[in-house]
Amino acid sequence: KRQGFPEVIFGEGKDPTQIINISRAMINKQENVLVTRIEQTKAETVMKSLPDFQYDVASRTLFMKNNDENVQTSGYIAIVCAGTSDLPVAEEAAKTAEAFGVEVRRFYDVGVAGIHRLFAHIEEIQNATVSVVIAGMEGALPSVVGGLVSHPVISVPTSVGYGANFQGLSALLTMLNSCASGISVVNIDNGFGGAYNAVMIQRIANTH
Amino acid sequence: KRQGFPEVIFGEGKDPTQIINISRAMINKQENVLVTRIEQTKAETVMKSLPDFQYDVASRTLFMKNNDENVQTSGYIAIVCAGTSDLPVAEEAAKTAEAFGVEVRRFYDVGVAGIHRLFAHIEEIQNATVSVVIAGMEGALPSVVGGLVSHPVISVPTSVGYGANFQGLSALLTMLNSCASGISVVNIDNGFGGAYNAVMIQRIANTH
Amino acid sequence: KRQGFPEVIFGEGKDPTQIINISRAMINKQENVLVTRIEQTKAETVMKSLPDFQYDVASRTLFMKNNDENVQTSGYIAIVCAGTSDLPVAEEAAKTAEAFGVEVRRFYDVGVAGIHRLFAHIEEIQNATVSVVIAGMEGALPSVVGGLVSHPVISVPTSVGYGANFQGLSALLTMLNSCASGISVVNIDNGFGGAYNAVMIQRIANTH
Amino acid sequence: KRQGFPEVIFGEGKDPTQIINISRAMINKQENVLVTRIEQTKAETVMKSLPDFQYDVASRTLFMKNNDENVQTSGYIAIVCAGTSDLPVAEEAAKTAEAFGVEVRRFYDVGVAGIHRLFAHIEEIQNATVSVVIAGMEGALPSVVGGLVSHPVISVPTSVGYGANFQGLSALLTMLNSCASGISVVNIDNGFGGAYNAVMIQRIANTH
Amino acid sequence: KRQGFPEVIFGEGKDPTQIINISRAMINKQENVLVTRIEQTKAETVMKSLPDFQYDVASRTLFMKNNDENVQTSGYIAIVCAGTSDLPVAEEAAKTAEAFGVEVRRFYDVGVAGIHRLFAHIEEIQNATVSVVIAGMEGALPSVVGGLVSHPVISVPTSVGYGANFQGLSALLTMLNSCASGISVVNIDNGFGGAYNAVMIQRIANTH
Amino acid sequence: KRQGFPEVIFGEGKDPTQIINISRAMINKQENVLVTRIEQTKAETVMKSLPDFQYDVASRTLFMKNNDENVQTSGYIAIVCAGTSDLPVAEEAAKTAEAFGVEVRRFYDVGVAGIHRLFAHIEEIQNATVSVVIAGMEGALPSVVGGLVSHPVISVPTSVGYGANFQGLSALLTMLNSCASGISVVNIDNGFGGAYNAVMIQRIANTH
Amino acid sequence: KRQGFPEVIFGEGKDPTQIINISRAMINKQENVLVTRIEQTKAETVMKSLPDFQYDVASRTLFMKNNDENVQTSGYIAIVCAGTSDLPVAEEAAKTAEAFGVEVRRFYDVGVAGIHRLFAHIEEIQNATVSVVIAGMEGALPSVVGGLVSHPVISVPTSVGYGANFQGLSALLTMLNSCASGISVVNIDNGFGGAYNAVMIQRIANTH
Amino acid sequence: KRQGFPEVIFGEGKDPTQIINISRAMINKQENVLVTRIEQTKAETVMKSLPDFQYDVASRTLFMKNNDENVQTSGYIAIVCAGTSDLPVAEEAAKTAEAFGVEVRRFYDVGVAGIHRLFAHIEEIQNATVSVVIAGMEGALPSVVGGLVSHPVISVPTSVGYGANFQGLSALLTMLNSCASGISVVNIDNGFGGAYNAVMIQRIANTH
Ligand SMILES: Nc1ncnc2c1ncn2[C@@H]1O[C@H](COP(=O)(O)O)[C@@H](O)[C@H]1O
Ligand SMILES: Nc1ncnc2c1ncn2[C@@H]1O[C@H](COP(=O)(O)O)[C@@H](O)[C@H]1O
Ligand SMILES: Nc1ncnc2c1ncn2[C@@H]1O[C@H](COP(=O)(O)O)[C@@H](O)[C@H]1O
Ligand SMILES: Nc1ncnc2c1ncn2[C@@H]1O[C@H](COP(=O)(O)O)[C@@H](O)[C@H]1O
Ligand SMILES: [Mg+2]
Ligand SMILES: [Mg+2]
Ligand SMILES: [Mg+2]
Ligand SMILES: [Mg+2]
Ligand SMILES: [Mg+2]
Ligand SMILES: [Mg+2]
Ligand SMILES: [Mg+2]
Ligand SMILES: [Mg+2]
Repeated sequence: KRQGFPEVIFGEGKDPTQIINISRAMINKQENVLVTRIEQTKAETVMKSLPDFQYDVASRTLFMKNNDENVQTSGYIAIVCAGTSDLPVAEEAAKTAEAFGVEVRRFYDVGVAGIHRLFAHIEEIQNATVSVVIAGMEGALPSVVGGLVSHPVISVPTSVGYGANFQGLSALLTMLNSCASGISVVNIDNGFGGAYNAVMIQRIANTH
Repeated sequence: KRQGFPEVIFGEGKDPTQIINISRAMINKQENVLVTRIEQTKAETVMKSLPDFQYDVASRTLFMKNNDENVQTSGYIAIVCAGTSDLPVAEEAAKTAEAFGVEVRRFYDVGVAGIHRLFAHIEEIQNATVSVVIAGMEGALPSVVGGLVSHPVISVPTSVGYGANFQGLSALLTMLNSCASGISVVNIDNGFGGAYNAVMIQRIANTH
Repeated sequence: KRQGFPEVIFGEGKDPTQIINISRAMINKQENVLVTRIEQTKAETVMKSLPDFQYDVASRTLFMKNNDENVQTSGYIAIVCAGTSDLPVAEEAAKTAEAFGVEVRRFYDVGVAGIHRLFAHIEEIQNATVSVVIAGMEGALPSVVGGLVSHPVISVPTSVGYGANFQGLSALLTMLNSCASGISVVNIDNGFGGAYNAVMIQRIANTH
Repeated sequence: KRQGFPEVIFGEGKDPTQIINISRAMINKQENVLVTRIEQTKAETVMKSLPDFQYDVASRTLFMKNNDENVQTSGYIAIVCAGTSDLPVAEEAAKTAEAFGVEVRRFYDVGVAGIHRLFAHIEEIQNATVSVVIAGMEGALPSVVGGLVSHPVISVPTSVGYGANFQGLSALLTMLNSCASGISVVNIDNGFGGAYNAVMIQRIANTH
Repeated sequence: KRQGFPEVIFGEGKDPTQIINISRAMINKQENVLVTRIEQTKAETVMKSLPDFQYDVASRTLFMKNNDENVQTSGYIAIVCAGTSDLPVAEEAAKTAEAFGVEVRRFYDVGVAGIHRLFAHIEEIQNATVSVVIAGMEGALPSVVGGLVSHPVISVPTSVGYGANFQGLSALLTMLNSCASGISVVNIDNGFGGAYNAVMIQRIANTH
Repeated sequence: KRQGFPEVIFGEGKDPTQIINISRAMINKQENVLVTRIEQTKAETVMKSLPDFQYDVASRTLFMKNNDENVQTSGYIAIVCAGTSDLPVAEEAAKTAEAFGVEVRRFYDVGVAGIHRLFAHIEEIQNATVSVVIAGMEGALPSVVGGLVSHPVISVPTSVGYGANFQGLSALLTMLNSCASGISVVNIDNGFGGAYNAVMIQRIANTH
Repeated sequence: KRQGFPEVIFGEGKDPTQIINISRAMINKQENVLVTRIEQTKAETVMKSLPDFQYDVASRTLFMKNNDENVQTSGYIAIVCAGTSDLPVAEEAAKTAEAFGVEVRRFYDVGVAGIHRLFAHIEEIQNATVSVVIAGMEGALPSVVGGLVSHPVISVPTSVGYGANFQGLSALLTMLNSCASGISVVNIDNGFGGAYNAVMIQRIANTH
Repeated sequence: KRQGFPEVIFGEGKDPTQIINISRAMINKQENVLVTRIEQTKAETVMKSLPDFQYDVASRTLFMKNNDENVQTSGYIAIVCAGTSDLPVAEEAAKTAEAFGVEVRRFYDVGVAGIHRLFAHIEEIQNATVSVVIAGMEGALPSVVGGLVSHPVISVPTSVGYGANFQGLSALLTMLNSCASGISVVNIDNGFGGAYNAVMIQRIANTH
């Protein structure tokens, strides 16, 4: 485990007892604990045993702060997406970055089909250290953002869509083939992974 | 065959003799003849027998005008693409539309990674009757154009790219999943098909 | 938003409260409101708050008319499909076009395996401004229609079928590879998209 | 080997010496010999040693008759396709059936995009014992034929096409998903296989 | 509809009322009626209105005999599969053929992994007019049967299996690529289609 | 490197100089050297510098024996395939096993479409320690062999075939889904890998 | 059936009555019985009739020992995986091997992302006769283990993961393409098959 | 274009004249010029007109330095791969980073099948600011490196391999599904893209 990083538990496929046990071990070591991909009812079972956890519906995460030696950061991560349906993944990314003590700024209504909304915020996005750009359906947003900013763009395809979307394959391929430089990709719906990469880059900014 | 339309011969997989024979039959009926997907050397063999054909390298087309009853049109088709590598498909579209007697305007350096170039021409694109938008790699251009114009967008994915592009599959899926409304799609590299649909729409504008 | 067009809300993945809020904003602006892909029970929850909505089971749409400045159109859109199983997508297309104030004519029992039924109606289909042709399974209908009409055909593959249908992939590929000219394609099951493109073309007919 | 059937050698991937040796063994047993998928230059090498072979360019087959006990048949097989580009596969089917001593009738210009040409010949097709229907691109022809005839249709997808055709996958899926009953499918470009199945059915007609 | 054939209703995706209505129309015309792919509870609802229907659990079919002019046949169709899990598809085939008045013989425990069981019955299979061979998982059975019989083999891949089976794709590809001649293929799980083709061939045997 | 094993150089994509240099280093250490996937002309260039190499056309391998401490083995590996077209992969397997000092017995004309040829040799196959079964097209052979022997079967799919074979995908899926137990699979065309696994198992037999 | 091997019933898709009947037949022959892929509630129904069965939750297996002539083995099989989510497949493998009377050793917390845990146990893994290595997500573990041991590695991809994992396709391809020699692969989630191959190899060790 | 960055020309699909013209424009602006994916003969044609270019065979790049205001950097990028066959992509990455004025360290013989070679260099890799990890075949290397370092890993799948590798798809999926955190992915064979992302991160280190 890296210095000052919270432990992150992948909640999917684990039962409440397993999550409680892993969490307890971390709490004993005074680590901050983040659980991702955990549905509300399962989270509530966990919270009966560990009431200091806080559940966040939008991102489906549990978080508990046991430790204050937060890494100080001066910059911020821009989290960019098109709206309603990509929100759970975007919030998983945002909550992850915040659990790591990094400031995030959310730009959540800026899809390519209404590009003027992106332009209304572009300067604040450009001033971020790094962007996490989340998009489903055709997944074109990272290409457009990548062409407008000079920092690394971590792109996260989502499984939002239907038909020839093939559960996110469409957005994934779009991002891998982006004609804008400075874009890298993580797995479909992997908001955590997008944020983790961004946090690492933000740390580089703060420690150099 | 539709009234006043040229005959279009799909040149790929036909030998010069076949092309010459089909062409002759049309010339006899005083029809304009367009041959698509024909490489230069094959075209030159054809032109030895039918010297009135004109070959266009960029679009790999042969054309012969045998008939002047051109449908008069007042509007124009916007042909939009990102540049160098999509050019053969864009020009196949452009030459096809012109063979049908329709005015086209070319916007050929306006990819999403340098979106300001698109904005520099956006008004002229908006004033077209219909747009044919051609894109390879991630194929995001039709989504962006579709969000900015109020007319139909026929999108043409190209096989330009490599790796996870899978010979145009990436761009094809992008276009089918576009979050912008008013976008329809034709086959990968099918510049002819994109133009044919646009011409039909332009005719509707001129005959109503 | 385009002049005189209703707002269309994509109902899938939105909860009733979200749909009510978006609808209210539109009602305030005296816009017609169409909600697509909304199941009956969800629709009924919405209608408790907004009783002026009308639910249509076959197309799974909600519609409310708040505005009468209907664009007058003289032509009509032909909506063509093979029958029972493609009906929800066909009706999504029909209701969408009607919400936009365009006349549609339905040809719903004309699959390729009983081609005489198509021929019985072919003249009325040929007289449309544009056709939306919907087909599942092997998706051959647009090719046959496209060969018989002189106007643009927007084809909509559906996910109807099983086995090697691969949730509509078969019909999608069929339509993209059509040997008939003048056919373009939208996403699998995207009745809305098929109609939207057709409406745009019908508008061109009425405004030129 | 079945009584009275010629031996068929799959020529692809075999060198001339291998083909000559296998052929000689058959000639010694006074069997008719058919070699499929053999290019002209390779065939010419074989014919230097075995000059009684006859090469057919269109079908890329070699044939030698060593035996006259031809099964008498009263019916015929209809071989149906759309034209130029599917011709090599159609001729492979035709030559195979003829090598088996069965009469074939060719219907080679009857694609779905010009369906009146199919109707011009439909009665003669309906009177066949069995049809072999060959189609590339969207592969819709077997569905249309299957709806018009009362005998079995063996359908052969071809790899003719480009882009989203994926080397014949499109036509293959179309045929597997046909909404017409009485259609079965063989491998892409497998003209031999289509004919072989048809010959077996024709034999049933002649021996019952 | 073909002379003397029952009407076959595809039950999947139709509600009981639709099935009842279509059935009634056929009953009025004194046709035999077969409904395929209908689950028990839905069938029971239908039978409340139409008690002359008989439901068969294994094949998930409803059948009603309204007409006795059964085509007399002397041969039989062999229905061959490996066992338990492919049984629903095999029985759909068997019941379909029987509804068409054709004798079937079932060989249901003869998979390739225990090939001696196939050999125990091979003579009776060889004496059939045509075989319908059903197989899931790797789908190898038609190749083995095809090598042992001299009549046409209609092969039906099933979706039985898991993992790299990809819902029947594995068995489908196996059958399309069979190195045995005289094998054709229908859609995954299409027991009806397999039987329909076999019935057509059996009719040829009986009418020639 | 394991005790007593030759070094194996993957020849594809290496130029002669690279192969010569790697080989020399091994010769210096008195190791046996096997080069796989090397075409004849490249092999001949290598042999100009290292004339002790022996080239085998069928398997496309180079071999040089520099060391005699051959592991003594009492059992043998059965290498089983259907014939001509799978031969290069079968021979790559055979030569690899022999380079490792293990006896192999070849059964090369035993495909599933002519299963009696397999039965003619089945006892000798059953007496092997392990079988390597190689098959292209539908890849059914390992399932049949696996049902008849009591030892492990390493199966090697080949890319032999066309159309829906998809370069060996068909045979690969068949083998992964085999209903016979005791079958494992290596990469398409990986004769080397099949043999390597078999050699390891043969060694277990000899060292326990 | 092989000498001294238990009968193994594939529980998925069989109802309790079928499982009870097959089991009874085996019990009568005094064979050990293993049922795989059986969920708890179904198992409990079976155990009402056959209370000597023991259910194991983790592996979803039922087992009954009716026979003690256990094959004596001196070596052991290493079962290696990364943890929690692959555990059901790993335990299916372990219970299978144990049902065959073979000793297994479990190494269940040794994924590639924390490779030091693998190294902590590597010697005990190296001393096994054969390893079964189970991995989901990227499936890299067999490559790493294969590079460290000198015995055969049977690798089992699991469907654990999401997004671009495509239900285990990712891990499957990884294992088929391993750059380590001596690795073979079974179907996704096929813990039984992995163990069966390993048991066969262990038997070779014990009988030679 | 970003401050101080060279212009990078994608050489594939451009003819020498196009490359010369684009280069001249950049030279006039005193920019450094890098051309990627350019084969030797094409490069030599370019160098006849622009002799100040230097061609590098291994990376297939041309480079010309026209400007010395090199960004000073204190850290370095680790470029990690397994050897011979991935070298062209690794060198494309290395040359790109160097063209951007960033120090790279090469670790080129450290594949997962011989993991001790990776451990021999692990400390120097850990001290890098960011790693670019390149791998073909199963693509497991980034997962292993990612588990051992605390900085971002940009992973580049290559198309090296055969059979079930599917031109790099295998390695691509592996990397997207990595169980190690802090890994992002670029397109198959996109050494340029991997380096570009790494350079951006190195710049953040140097400017904060
Ligand atoms: N059934 C549908 N399928 C695809 N797109 C739709 C559908 N219904 C509405 N839309 C589009 O979705 C937009 C609204 O999306 P949203 O803001 O998510 O409600 C509309 O403007 C349409 O462009
Ligand atoms: N199980 C089945 N699978 C595929 N096609 C079927 C099946 N059962 C019936 N059909 C076909 O579906 C047609 C009836 O379709 P429908 O009009 O939708 O009931 C019949 O004439 C058959 O051709
Ligand atoms: N034909 C082959 N297919 C797959 N792997 C092979 C083949 N031949 C050799 N190898 C493996 O490739 C390794 C050598 O690779 P290289 O260092 O690139 O020459 C050998 O140790 C084998 O593990
Ligand atoms: N090897 C490469 N792979 C992917 N993208 C590249 C490569 N080399 C250059 N590029 C990108 O391509 C752009 C130039 O494209 P073009 O205008 O077609 O020459 C550069 O700015 C880079 O972003
Ligand atoms: Mg950028
Ligand atoms: Mg628009
Ligand atoms: Mg038309
Ligand atoms: Mg028919
Ligand atoms: Mg046969
Ligand atoms: Mg066996
Ligand atoms: Mg090893
Ligand atoms: Mg790390």
